[in-house]
Amino acid sequence: MKIDSVDLFYLAIPVIKDIADGSQDALLVRVRGGGLTGWGECEASPLVSIANWCCPMSHAACRPVRDAVLGQTLDSPQDIVRINRTARAMGLDIAQTDHTLSGIDIALWDLLGKARQEPVYKLLGYSRAYPKTPYASQLFGDTPQQTLEKAKQSREQGYRAVKFGWGSYGRGAAETDREQVMAAREGLGKDAILLVDAGTIWYDDVEQAALRLAALEDARATWLEEPFVGGALDAYRELASRCRTVKLAGGEGAHNFFQARHLIDHGRVAFIQIDTGRIGGISDAKQVADYACAHGVTYVNHTFTSHLALSASLQPFAGLADYAICEYPVEATELACTLTQSTLKRNRDGQVELPETPGLGVEPDPLAIEKYLVDAKITVAGKTVYQTPTL
Amino acid sequence: MKIDSVDLFYLAIPVIKDIADGSQDALLVRVRGGGLTGWGECEASPLVSIANWCCPMSHAACRPVRDAVLGQTLDSPQDIVRINRTARAMGLDIAQTDHTLSGIDIALWDLLGKARQEPVYKLLGYSRAYPKTPYASQLFGDTPQQTLEKAKQSREQGYRAVKFGWGSYGRGAAETDREQVMAAREGLGKDAILLVDAGTIWYDDVEQAALRLAALEDARATWLEEPFVGGALDAYRELASRCRTVKLAGGEGAHNFFQARHLIDHGRVAFIQIDTGRIGGISDAKQVADYACAHGVTYVNHTFTSHLALSASLQPFAGLADYAICEYPVEATELACTLTQSTLKRNRDGQVELPETPGLGVEPDPLAIEKYLVDAKITVAGKTVYQTPTL
Repeated sequence: MKIDSVDLFYLAIPVIKDIADGSQDALLVRVRGGGLTGWGECEASPLVSIANWCCPMSHAACRPVRDAVLGQTLDSPQDIVRINRTARAMGLDIAQTDHTLSGIDIALWDLLGKARQEPVYKLLGYSRAYPKTPYASQLFGDTPQQTLEKAKQSREQGYRAVKFGWGSYGRGAAETDREQVMAAREGLGKDAILLVDAGTIWYDDVEQAALRLAALEDARATWLEEPFVGGALDAYRELASRCRTVKLAGGEGAHNFFQARHLIDHGRVAFIQIDTGRIGGISDAKQVADYACAHGVTYVNHTFTSHLALSASLQPFAGLADYAICEYPVEATELACTLTQSTLKRNRDGQVELPETPGLGVEPDPLAIEKYLVDAKITVAGKTVYQTPTL
Repeated sequence: MKIDSVDLFYLAIPVIKDIADGSQDALLVRVRGGGLTGWGECEASPLVSIANWCCPMSHAACRPVRDAVLGQTLDSPQDIVRINRTARAMGLDIAQTDHTLSGIDIALWDLLGKARQEPVYKLLGYSRAYPKTPYASQLFGDTPQQTLEKAKQSREQGYRAVKFGWGSYGRGAAETDREQVMAAREGLGKDAILLVDAGTIWYDDVEQAALRLAALEDARATWLEEPFVGGALDAYRELASRCRTVKLAGGEGAHNFFQARHLIDHGRVAFIQIDTGRIGGISDAKQVADYACAHGVTYVNHTFTSHLALSASLQPFAGLADYAICEYPVEATELACTLTQSTLKRNRDGQVELPETPGLGVEPDPLAIEKYLVDAKITVAGKTVYQTPTL
């Protein structure tokens, strides 16, 4: 089939708060071809990625993403890889290209799955999708007591793994952070998996991070996530060498396969966390999963938004039975919760399973899109290059 | 002083060609504070960076660059470093942030220099600016004969170093590439420095690149630039190990200090090429120059556009006498050539010297801006978030 059209929808809740909740807006991608429709989602600033989709060419290696996509042939996984590579070459000098391409790549896999009548994980070469143990991903409470309550609540909801992150963690004294982490463990009880996310708070300062290790190990945290920005490979490696029981996790900020690989090779993370909405889509994410497999590193999805994003993020490691846990958003906004007609609910065992329906198996709800749709328009030299598309 | 306003101007020639000439458009940044005006330039897609400047907040780590800049205090180099770091934290989840920030950081250095009545290189800690030997940077001819003519012409114009790049190089047979490179050497004569730029053509394919090494060494090329995309560190390292006399160069695509450092540490480049319009500005570039110095790697600017960009790109290594060559655009469009009221002309010895006037010492020409100004407008939810500013 031929890719007939690509449409980008900017969705947002009415009032965006200055907190680390990435589900307050969304950039939804609709791709049409062969009489079918595929959907994807960029984990990106909607306006910046929209501009990246439709910007005028600056030169041969600074072209809009649409130049690599519209009118292309899509009949096989190789076609998606080719389109992905072309978009990267044409957009070499536009940093945003990776983020914008991500949602499109995801929508192309969804479309191809629908055309082939196969779930995406099968197109990726897996024979089955193993259920994953979801970890409830949430922000730290404002106080240790609140964190303890949140942890208890997650246990009551049947979660066996919980992640706390962002909020005040790392912003005050190490002793305060210890109280937060110990409160989380107390609320979870002895057996649950505890994960902690520092949200790059120490930038590249190994000593600041090292001050928190003892508390994390006393609380038996499985991982410390993103102590540093993704580029600080040497800080990751140094901190990893100082860990006894807790391991390092990172990678959500990776914009391509290489950046994830460097975190594995040079940063020595034990868990590589990939957001298909940022890394360039399902194509790049699958490459990372293969690499992680070959190098004894555990692949985990990064997802804090909708269940469309969740399905896209689970496909790349769906067939890897040993990679048993997955991030599962539990504090997403109403926008993210109602965006799709169905969600990936936990089964009786508390596990998350991918749908067996063709493509990603999760369809956006037109009513939700309508409700949250943000009207946007971009004109350049008297020509409208973007206008909110009709549903 | 306080940063009162920041304005972004999108400039372009009337018809943009699908060639690797990055001077066909420009994103000019004007910063005002303390009654003074500073100027900078992003080496970026103008529309995408404009959207990044003014986009609505998505969440705490996905905010527009302007949130980190407007109203900030600017009295010292430390203030610029602080603003730069804040913009990175607020824009952590917007890949374009590095490109957008670059022109702003440059304009802040220009503004601070004007306030302090010092050239920027002095603010960076250098006591003097050493003249650099410019290499004429140009595209390969369509045929070896054309390349030979271009090389001769450069020698006639007094250039002692010439770089050829892009065009057909790497796209056909290795034998064709040999003819191009040998033609360049023939045109240059025995003594001139020959540099070759592959423009990431082999992505991460070491064998394809290795096929060209013999010709490069026979032609006594000093460096092979960007055989691979910037992330392909292992490919760089492997190719570096196979070079006998030619060295590897790269780094123009680095979006932050870390990426440049990784090319040095893990990619084993001998020349690190930094574009201040991409890496996050003069602040990040100076960090790279310091790191290169400490690790025996030669720092070189990357500049293919205006002399405002050229001055900004020379400041970070102005005081390093041993880093003797600099990129010098010789094929820029009329836009880039007329954008500034003055240019960094070569002196009698054919060397390029930085101005001793405060700031960057190169001011945009309002007439040029007016002539090439592209009218752009962005509205979101009924509100105009960007409109081409008045001069």
